[in-house]
Amino acid sequence: MARRLKGASSADTRSAILDLIRSSGQVSRIELSEKSGLTEATISKIVRTLIVDGFVIETGYAESTGGKRPVLLELNVASRYALGVSLDYARISLVLCDISGKMLHSHAVAGTRVSKPQSVIDRVAREISRFLVKHKVDRSDVIGIGVSGAGRLDASGGALRSSKQAGEWEEFAIEAALGEATNMPVILENDANCAALGEFWSGRVSTAHDFATIYMATGIGCGIVINGDVYRGASSNAGEIGHLSLDIDGPECFCGSRGCVEVMATPAAVVRNARDDHALWKRLGLREREGEDIRASFATIAAAAMTGDHDAESLVRQSAKYVATAVLGLTNIFDLDRVYLAGPGFAIASPIYLDMVRDVLGRLAFMRKVHSVAVEMGETGPGAAARGAASVVLHSRLTPHHVRG
Amino acid sequence: MARRLKGASSADTRSAILDLIRSSGQVSRIELSEKSGLTEATISKIVRTLIVDGFVIETGYAESTGGKRPVLLELNVASRYALGVSLDYARISLVLCDISGKMLHSHAVAGTRVSKPQSVIDRVAREISRFLVKHKVDRSDVIGIGVSGAGRLDASGGALRSSKQAGEWEEFAIEAALGEATNMPVILENDANCAALGEFWSGRVSTAHDFATIYMATGIGCGIVINGDVYRGASSNAGEIGHLSLDIDGPECFCGSRGCVEVMATPAAVVRNARDDHALWKRLGLREREGEDIRASFATIAAAAMTGDHDAESLVRQSAKYVATAVLGLTNIFDLDRVYLAGPGFAIASPIYLDMVRDVLGRLAFMRKVHSVAVEMGETGPGAAARGAASVVLHSRLTPHHVRG
Repeated sequence: MARRLKGASSADTRSAILDLIRSSGQVSRIELSEKSGLTEATISKIVRTLIVDGFVIETGYAESTGGKRPVLLELNVASRYALGVSLDYARISLVLCDISGKMLHSHAVAGTRVSKPQSVIDRVAREISRFLVKHKVDRSDVIGIGVSGAGRLDASGGALRSSKQAGEWEEFAIEAALGEATNMPVILENDANCAALGEFWSGRVSTAHDFATIYMATGIGCGIVINGDVYRGASSNAGEIGHLSLDIDGPECFCGSRGCVEVMATPAAVVRNARDDHALWKRLGLREREGEDIRASFATIAAAAMTGDHDAESLVRQSAKYVATAVLGLTNIFDLDRVYLAGPGFAIASPIYLDMVRDVLGRLAFMRKVHSVAVEMGETGPGAAARGAASVVLHSRLTPHHVRG
Repeated sequence: MARRLKGASSADTRSAILDLIRSSGQVSRIELSEKSGLTEATISKIVRTLIVDGFVIETGYAESTGGKRPVLLELNVASRYALGVSLDYARISLVLCDISGKMLHSHAVAGTRVSKPQSVIDRVAREISRFLVKHKVDRSDVIGIGVSGAGRLDASGGALRSSKQAGEWEEFAIEAALGEATNMPVILENDANCAALGEFWSGRVSTAHDFATIYMATGIGCGIVINGDVYRGASSNAGEIGHLSLDIDGPECFCGSRGCVEVMATPAAVVRNARDDHALWKRLGLREREGEDIRASFATIAAAAMTGDHDAESLVRQSAKYVATAVLGLTNIFDLDRVYLAGPGFAIASPIYLDMVRDVLGRLAFMRKVHSVAVEMGETGPGAAARGAASVVLHSRLTPHHVRG
């Protein structure tokens, strides 16, 4: 079947107008008509439904340009909310955002650890109820829950089909289970795509600008935004930068290939390498333990690297060199001119990673004679993934999408 | 400035309807309305202009579904033409296509060699005139000339900014010069994107299907089709798969990086490696010469590999391993489920490359548990780039595009 024509659906047009209002701050109907190419009559009709539904309010008057002063419209930010949840081994974060993407409240609870998926989902549903009651938010004003998870998604059922640690989550349909437990629409998205959409909704990137967000937690991935939407690929798993091979005859990765960024350079790989250096391991007070928290161990190593421990620094610099070379490959393939580094893996040693990526792209990007590549830090705080997940809901419900046939 | 809304421009809508008619074969106005989501009145109005302009004809009647039998429409393939030109060191190809993308005639003339760009362009313009006269094609029925070139494009002026061999072409505005010499619209596109659009217009891929075409001539690149159009990136240079590093500490590439596919695995690299094996070099009758034709030398090595020369085979298999690993990286990043191998570099040893890419993707693609990746041969004949270039014109003039603000 052929794809539907772009913009043919009225829901798409409504979302597009709402997105224009959001990204404009304040805007008149005439300006909306100019920016969208739609007639003023069509704009007026759509704006009327947006006002009735509470998404948009009239806030004042613009300067007159001859005739009547045009009425200014803006997003009614307090009219609805989006929830974001990040499911993480060590902790689960909840955030509440208004529909401009601004974070209003956040809350962290114990991580998934080794609990059964259904019991985790039931606990998250109870936490969400408490969280909403505490902040006096009516459930019917929540437009949806975004869930951020690490690993491959199953396009059909919203399951996380991951690799090493997924275990029982592999076949578990998170969207359906949390949807049933909360009676709200749920969207599952991988952490890198959440981070990319979070960047997008932070207002730092124009909707017309393509970019990639490299997301590093214990592993690494990336979210690629093209034409104002995340590029998903055949099964919603695009962006697997962690399985670029940088050493074709290097050590085997769990994916079966060799010399992947995953096995050479991620926080998990750095912690593994540090374990082989007994003196360093002991000096930093790192311990083998059941369910070791790789993020915490990596944070310790990164902190040591930033405060002059030469061995720790050389491990982190080695990681940064691999990450930078992977970003170089990504940049060459997508001809990118903007890249963000986000996620907790970049939090502590961000100057080392940022300098290395900037240096490598500045010296080696194939297009360096034609254009430069801006590299900036994105969000690296513990709530970044959950906030990104809330953005996924906003993006899904409030911006135009291209439905594929 | 915000992007225009998708589908807002009437030229876009007209192109979209024409594209639907093309891809449908025969179709009624009612079916067009159903497929596009536009009203029958809008469809009728657009179809009328397409018939007046000669792009579409009425060809008969469909079965009645109750009332009057609906009139069937189809593309008026003989109404207009597109020209394709590939500028190559060893030879220049010209092709003439009808507007369905079918190749009607082709012609090859001497290559660019070391001639001045302007004199090459003047010669191409004269060849185009003779070619059109010979085939009794009225110049005013040619909708444009597509030019395929190897190397980086300068998004601003249509110059080829390449690397090693570009020389005087580096600052030369091909589009403007050939446009002036022929008085026709000219579009310059890199060879990999031409090949991808050629695949698209061959009718083998549905317009709704994302895919990548790996294009190998003396170097390697790829054209990536997303949502029915080539993905171009910030400066129209996306797809530089040749500068993925597969050996982070490997030999230096002319791009400045190390271990790139370009320096490890392209036909140019294979010929370089063969030169180091004096016995092989002599056995195959390869000679050092002024302006050596790398494609011809590689063809000799590839033919030897296919006919049992063990040393030649191991060089080509090594190349195939690197190419396959680069395609694996591309597949993981884009989450592709369809890849074509095209271009003269794949012509002779296609079984070796095809088997290797299929084997590597089958064993190692990160998404292999979720979906398979189909790998097929695309066009590898000498006119493939020129035919692809003609498709670029058809694609540009006859399908809807997304104008970025």
